[in-house]
Amino acid sequence: MLELKDCNREILNDLSFLKTLLPDAATQAGAAVLGDSFHKFTPHGVSGVVVIAESHVSIHTWPEHGYAAVDIFSCGTRVDTDIAAQTIIKALQSKNHSIIEIQRGIL
Amino acid sequence: MLELKDCNREILNDLSFLKTLLPDAATQAGAAVLGDSFHKFTPHGVSGVVVIAESHVSIHTWPEHGYAAVDIFSCGTRVDTDIAAQTIIKALQSKNHSIIEIQRGIL
Repeated sequence: MLELKDCNREILNDLSFLKTLLPDAATQAGAAVLGDSFHKFTPHGVSGVVVIAESHVSIHTWPEHGYAAVDIFSCGTRVDTDIAAQTIIKALQSKNHSIIEIQRGIL
Repeated sequence: MLELKDCNREILNDLSFLKTLLPDAATQAGAAVLGDSFHKFTPHGVSGVVVIAESHVSIHTWPEHGYAAVDIFSCGTRVDTDIAAQTIIKALQSKNHSIIEIQRGIL
């Protein structure tokens, strides 16, 4: 989970940019993109999700706060989530970010 | 975040059931569904995401383990995430579940 603060507010409101960024970040991380669903809000904000094999990358932006919440959910070791995270952090020009890692499905 | 163990394995592998369940759970919780993306894997497993206003509900299932990882991401107080969670837990017939709540975007 990425908490991205002090981002570029124009980018956070740019649907077409984000719609390209998320699958690009996933692909760079070694994931195969299977589908997506994005939505732009009025007056501002974008929500989007990219579905990867047994994984997803989601983003919800609040341009008015310069904030984006990003989840990178991955199973297995094939996908390098660090690469996806760094690609997104850099693209959104976040000057203040934190990364929280949570293990799921400890069976 | 829901960790759902000891679920009904047939249901975890039922794409059409899950594709109906997630938006239904979101709608019951007071959310407006904006889009979705689902994928069924071979030999088993389903991934899916429903995009809601500034929110999403995602599921990744491992029928072979009777396990599903569900995220219910919500902003604001309009959506009752407990209702969505309980709807999904009941539908998947999970006999062993845990719920982890994380606050995002504390600005």
